[in-house]
Amino acid sequence: MPRRYTAPVVLPCDPACSVIRDGAVDVGDDGRITYVGPAAAEFDGPVTALSGILLPGLVNAHAHTPMTLLRGMGGDLPLLRWLREIIWPAEAKLRAEDVRNGMLLGSLEMLSRGVTTSAEMYFHAEEMADAVLTTGARAVLGGPIMDLPGLDWRQMIAAAERWIDADGLRFGPGERIELSFAAHSAYMLPPEALRLTAEAAAARGALVQIHVAEAANEDEQQRAEFGSVPKLLEQAGMLDGRVLAAHAIHLSDEDIALFAAHGVGVAHCPGSNGKLASGIARLTDLRAASVPVGLGTDGPASNDDLDLWEEIRLAAMFARLSTKDSAALSGPAALLLATRGGAEALGRNDIGALEAGRWADFVHIEPDDFTLALGLDVPDEQLLANLVWATGSRQVRDVWVAGDQVLAEGESTRADSAKVRAAAKESAARIRG
Amino acid sequence: MPRRYTAPVVLPCDPACSVIRDGAVDVGDDGRITYVGPAAAEFDGPVTALSGILLPGLVNAHAHTPMTLLRGMGGDLPLLRWLREIIWPAEAKLRAEDVRNGMLLGSLEMLSRGVTTSAEMYFHAEEMADAVLTTGARAVLGGPIMDLPGLDWRQMIAAAERWIDADGLRFGPGERIELSFAAHSAYMLPPEALRLTAEAAAARGALVQIHVAEAANEDEQQRAEFGSVPKLLEQAGMLDGRVLAAHAIHLSDEDIALFAAHGVGVAHCPGSNGKLASGIARLTDLRAASVPVGLGTDGPASNDDLDLWEEIRLAAMFARLSTKDSAALSGPAALLLATRGGAEALGRNDIGALEAGRWADFVHIEPDDFTLALGLDVPDEQLLANLVWATGSRQVRDVWVAGDQVLAEGESTRADSAKVRAAAKESAARIRG
Ligand SMILES: [Zn+2]
Ligand SMILES: [Zn+2]
Repeated sequence: MPRRYTAPVVLPCDPACSVIRDGAVDVGDDGRITYVGPAAAEFDGPVTALSGILLPGLVNAHAHTPMTLLRGMGGDLPLLRWLREIIWPAEAKLRAEDVRNGMLLGSLEMLSRGVTTSAEMYFHAEEMADAVLTTGARAVLGGPIMDLPGLDWRQMIAAAERWIDADGLRFGPGERIELSFAAHSAYMLPPEALRLTAEAAAARGALVQIHVAEAANEDEQQRAEFGSVPKLLEQAGMLDGRVLAAHAIHLSDEDIALFAAHGVGVAHCPGSNGKLASGIARLTDLRAASVPVGLGTDGPASNDDLDLWEEIRLAAMFARLSTKDSAALSGPAALLLATRGGAEALGRNDIGALEAGRWADFVHIEPDDFTLALGLDVPDEQLLANLVWATGSRQVRDVWVAGDQVLAEGESTRADSAKVRAAAKESAARIRG
Repeated sequence: MPRRYTAPVVLPCDPACSVIRDGAVDVGDDGRITYVGPAAAEFDGPVTALSGILLPGLVNAHAHTPMTLLRGMGGDLPLLRWLREIIWPAEAKLRAEDVRNGMLLGSLEMLSRGVTTSAEMYFHAEEMADAVLTTGARAVLGGPIMDLPGLDWRQMIAAAERWIDADGLRFGPGERIELSFAAHSAYMLPPEALRLTAEAAAARGALVQIHVAEAANEDEQQRAEFGSVPKLLEQAGMLDGRVLAAHAIHLSDEDIALFAAHGVGVAHCPGSNGKLASGIARLTDLRAASVPVGLGTDGPASNDDLDLWEEIRLAAMFARLSTKDSAALSGPAALLLATRGGAEALGRNDIGALEAGRWADFVHIEPDDFTLALGLDVPDEQLLANLVWATGSRQVRDVWVAGDQVLAEGESTRADSAKVRAAAKESAARIRG
């Protein structure tokens, strides 16, 4: 039977970032939204009356979530020492079971911050899918395809192909899992690997996730030969399919035009980029060129939380500082990046907004906090400012994915958080060993 | 009778940012710390065993906290329109009672984020003092001295003098209130006012709080005449006393040398500076010159929360981005800015660290969260990284000021939060009118 959820404020995250007062979201038996609008509209069926703000679940457009197990390791070592001395040796010890434990922890953490979907690139992707199905979240995931000693990228592409061909591009209740090809980067893979990845993905309508232009000096060889990584990706045929470029910091005007022409999505990761001093992506220029942009946390070892609300504020601050224009990115526009923007960047039109036909992935913000003390009945622009700049993830209380409540009163309805934390702790201790 | 608090982790926030395992903080009847160190040391008296991390209460070095009432008003209007059309008209309607309500709200909010001291500049300073004494927090405060139509700066200086001469520079239980002279800025006051403020403050050993070089274009006239605001302040004799310069973004090497030579404190406000696109202060250069630097939120209408933990992360990110050096400011160093750094910037050696002789202002972080799931027994640098980069204010559970517990299990022991929120809501509605 369809069910209605009402709330004093509903934010559909439509392009205008409208505020619906005394709104309703109706959900069909299939877990999809059937209606969003005034609660005054007629409805036959059970109604759940909520007290706060309803908005779509946030979309984390770039993450390596199982790295919760490595969170904070090495403290503030410089990047290359940190990778060589801490992260890579630790990752070499990761077993499938550890990845599952790290993903369970991070998935529960994201849900508790109001993030319902994440785009994931990490080893043991099957374990990640299993963890996500356990917590009830949604993910687009792929095991990384990379050229490393002892790792054969051809086998990695073949493994991703086999999995999609066996289980389908999307599967699970509410199509919670989407499979993708996660090519690590142009500097970790030969052009031939990029070409074959693009072909395999295009043949299956699958997304390719790839790191692009994160560090200023990471792709010198590729730039010398091809001009830029976007140009290399174009020549490899990768831009003709669905592509999600993570970071995309050091881009030329030509690169941006190339992304725009091909509809390449960008996952902007300001927190990670700031913490690692990678630079500030040209968000204002990307948006001006109509490149679909979402926000990502990147892995919790370089952020270190999984709180996309912080990325919303950082995206606005970084855009304003880098353009010296306080109007460069408004709070509501930044909120849209974390919702419908993320969906667009992933090439998805079935998540990221409250709209009939999309999956019923939504979040309830409880107003019982100092930051919302002025009330929900303040003017729209003030309410949005309070939510984005002051409240953030603090008051996320209930979360639904595909119409199923997966977080209730701040607690997972699917998994025992204490057990998940204990298992992650044990895995992390073994890896530190 | 003296009391001991023990915890698996005690962070005294000494210059090395040491981590004491199985530590203790002993508090005398006068509300001052008598011992910080291993819990194995002998102690005769009642012991409270806590389960998490103990650290000093954070020091918010620059705030206009009653502006909680204006939080989010006007949304993302450009700065000057926002001030002229929204903020100034709203402030003109503020009554003493409103300031009290706004300060009560903000003071409770700061305590709940682990901030025990704030440096405040706002109208109706007596009401602010009353509110702070009610919540049990600590503040350094002054009514703004400024040259505006209908406001006479001579009377404002005289009022501040009278108050200090009547009540003393510090008063209240645990000396919770320190009075100061809050000269708004060099662009809102003639040099003569700066000189007389400096004299009045010096005669009483009082701190002068002043905004310096926040916007690139705010002080053109002063720069044309004196070279820079710091030079103008020097000529006005203000740098010879205790001075706290808020923002201090657009400084030359000479300005920084001047601050260093005179021990001028700086309140770095990255969140406000980012939101308003004011620029990034030269934190690395200020620190290299040994200028005492603390962190401030600025008013909650330009931040918009009062969460100093976010400023800790922003300070580190901004320093790293502006120097392109991921080692520019470590997480622990940023934490010290928010604690002992804030105390130094305010010219105080009795707060901001857990150390015998200082006031027992401290915070208990409860570890029961995803972000601390790897345990408190991870290596020191990992624990500090988890706390600073992932946990932040989220797990602040208990707070003491001058040895009195003012927050217990997340709830104020002094004020009814629901009533405070309701009163603030009413004041805010009247001001919006
Ligand atoms: Zn990444
Ligand atoms: Zn200020």
